[in-house]
Amino acid sequence: MSAKGELNPTARFLMGPGPSDVHPRVLKAMATPLIGHLDPQFITIMDGVMEMLRQLFRTQNDVTFAVSATGSAGMETCFVNLLEPGDEALVCVNGVFGNRMCDNVERCGAKVVRVDAPWGQIIEPAQVKQALQGCIPRLVAIVHAETSTGVLQPLEEISEITHKAGALLLVDTVTSLGGTDVRVDDWGIDVVYSGTQKCISAPPGLSPVSFGPRAVEVMDQRKTKVQSWYLDLSMVRKYWAGAKRAYHHTAPISMVYALYEALRLIFEEGLEARFERHLRNHELLRDGLEEMGFEFLVAPEYRLPMLNAVKVPAGVDEAAVRRQLLDQFNIEIGGGLGDFAGKLWRIGLMGCSSTQNHVNMLLGALRRILKR
Amino acid sequence: MSAKGELNPTARFLMGPGPSDVHPRVLKAMATPLIGHLDPQFITIMDGVMEMLRQLFRTQNDVTFAVSATGSAGMETCFVNLLEPGDEALVCVNGVFGNRMCDNVERCGAKVVRVDAPWGQIIEPAQVKQALQGCIPRLVAIVHAETSTGVLQPLEEISEITHKAGALLLVDTVTSLGGTDVRVDDWGIDVVYSGTQKCISAPPGLSPVSFGPRAVEVMDQRKTKVQSWYLDLSMVRKYWAGAKRAYHHTAPISMVYALYEALRLIFEEGLEARFERHLRNHELLRDGLEEMGFEFLVAPEYRLPMLNAVKVPAGVDEAAVRRQLLDQFNIEIGGGLGDFAGKLWRIGLMGCSSTQNHVNMLLGALRRILKR
Repeated sequence: MSAKGELNPTARFLMGPGPSDVHPRVLKAMATPLIGHLDPQFITIMDGVMEMLRQLFRTQNDVTFAVSATGSAGMETCFVNLLEPGDEALVCVNGVFGNRMCDNVERCGAKVVRVDAPWGQIIEPAQVKQALQGCIPRLVAIVHAETSTGVLQPLEEISEITHKAGALLLVDTVTSLGGTDVRVDDWGIDVVYSGTQKCISAPPGLSPVSFGPRAVEVMDQRKTKVQSWYLDLSMVRKYWAGAKRAYHHTAPISMVYALYEALRLIFEEGLEARFERHLRNHELLRDGLEEMGFEFLVAPEYRLPMLNAVKVPAGVDEAAVRRQLLDQFNIEIGGGLGDFAGKLWRIGLMGCSSTQNHVNMLLGALRRILKR
Repeated sequence: MSAKGELNPTARFLMGPGPSDVHPRVLKAMATPLIGHLDPQFITIMDGVMEMLRQLFRTQNDVTFAVSATGSAGMETCFVNLLEPGDEALVCVNGVFGNRMCDNVERCGAKVVRVDAPWGQIIEPAQVKQALQGCIPRLVAIVHAETSTGVLQPLEEISEITHKAGALLLVDTVTSLGGTDVRVDDWGIDVVYSGTQKCISAPPGLSPVSFGPRAVEVMDQRKTKVQSWYLDLSMVRKYWAGAKRAYHHTAPISMVYALYEALRLIFEEGLEARFERHLRNHELLRDGLEEMGFEFLVAPEYRLPMLNAVKVPAGVDEAAVRRQLLDQFNIEIGGGLGDFAGKLWRIGLMGCSSTQNHVNMLLGALRRILKR
């Protein structure tokens, strides 16, 4: 019986679909000695996180905090708190995460009504409108930034259609939040979740969420208990924001430190400057890749600046190239998922990984490997 | 719109029911730059965590890893993967965490059969035996170390009774693991969960779990999908230990670093030495407290070394004393939960917080505050 070897991972440049590179100040925050999770000073930090998350989501929603697990648990939190057995939910599917939403709905004992679009394309408002004529869903769920395809989904028109049908709008902003505008209140988003390890550039481990007044009303009128104890907002809300903080679970203290520091960095930079930076570096990458003859999967008007889905040229072994990037250049990029396995690279320019230097490093490495 | 102030918590000594103090090497591990969660080097780290967790649980179970959320999610993982609607589960309740288990069982659509003992006392094997005559449960659930009361529950006899009845034994070791012996294989424990922020002395955020062959068989024969997507072991297992690691969610990378380093520290110290240290410091604290006239809640033979439940003397404002300890001495201890609110202090000597110096600091501070 013996201990394993020293923890000594190689320094990498993270340009995949997440996690992204983490700012040294955030790493330093992670190394801050712990205080108790009910310490008045920790409650002040939780309050700061909530306040900054409201600014980042551009919302006034009281119920805005970070679920104590990764983005996928944020997704689950939204569904299990809003759906009850027998409910209907309309789910828009144009990639992996839309499919995952359907799986979540079914596990709630609710009925899925799917609206499908080809992967790499947006969901058209007309599709949602038509589907709403055949069902009375509790909610319409849609992905703002599909990490599996690189599509940026316009939301305003679909929001209007959803509300006219009396449903809640539930949006996945795991990859968009912190890298492009997410306007929860202006766009009428009722429920939203995200992750920390993409454009917020903190480590994975928390899921920022926000629930608007209509969503809170639905939760307050539930007839059944939420199926998950850990994610039951009727209790978690009191822990994060109750007048007297009630013990529920033990928050991942160091992760909350990290999120706090990452949010501070975001507001020191300024949201507009940050979004502009993400766009500028995306354009730099795009120009370089197109010069080398690469094609993007997504039409220009719907491309995510932080997740660039590029078609693998015919005759190129995509996994071998990714392995070379990792082994010889310490650069991580992502491969395709599902139908796109082997056919796509997913290049992330998220948070601290969205810099000119990252773009130039990757372009140089690809030129060397592909001899272009 | 502006950033909040600098992250600058006061240095505390954590002697409550968790989190405990974290070793500088573990804090340093948290500050390690991230690599991707599917990076071959990260997979090696995950393998190391699994191997060391097997040693810590003293088990050969393949399915031994860390759930990507805190201990309460570990509890939920065990119940949702093993229970299906209509099942029966026998739950032993002698504190807060037994009650929480009942809540989990009900949320699975299963029927709870309770065995109750007064808080502060153990569950007697005869009680379990008798209860098993009136039900055919899928599992018997019990808490090894009840954090709300400080009771150490003997398990071997109950394990035998449970298996004779054809049920699985599910055990909560959140507070015991890493501080006192937990022998999963020798004691016939089929399912076990723990947390990182107690005697393992890592930050909260992961839940070590282990599932034995009988439990795996039950999971493999489920008729229904696990109600939680995030905690569904049929997928999570493939992510942690599949021949080809299949993407499920993004593991909390920095937390896995921390657990890896904390486990290394445990095996550098050695399990026996570590358990002996926990016991020795408990005795030191006990002697000091008894000298000051304090009484323990639990009978000597069932006291947890790492969680000392002490009765608050009549006429003492327990919350005011805890506040003074925090404000004037930077020492955190815990108050009572449930029926014991206002009547109990819970003093943790867990992991890095189990030292002679911690004991002496606390005794000195209490003497000063209480003028004893």
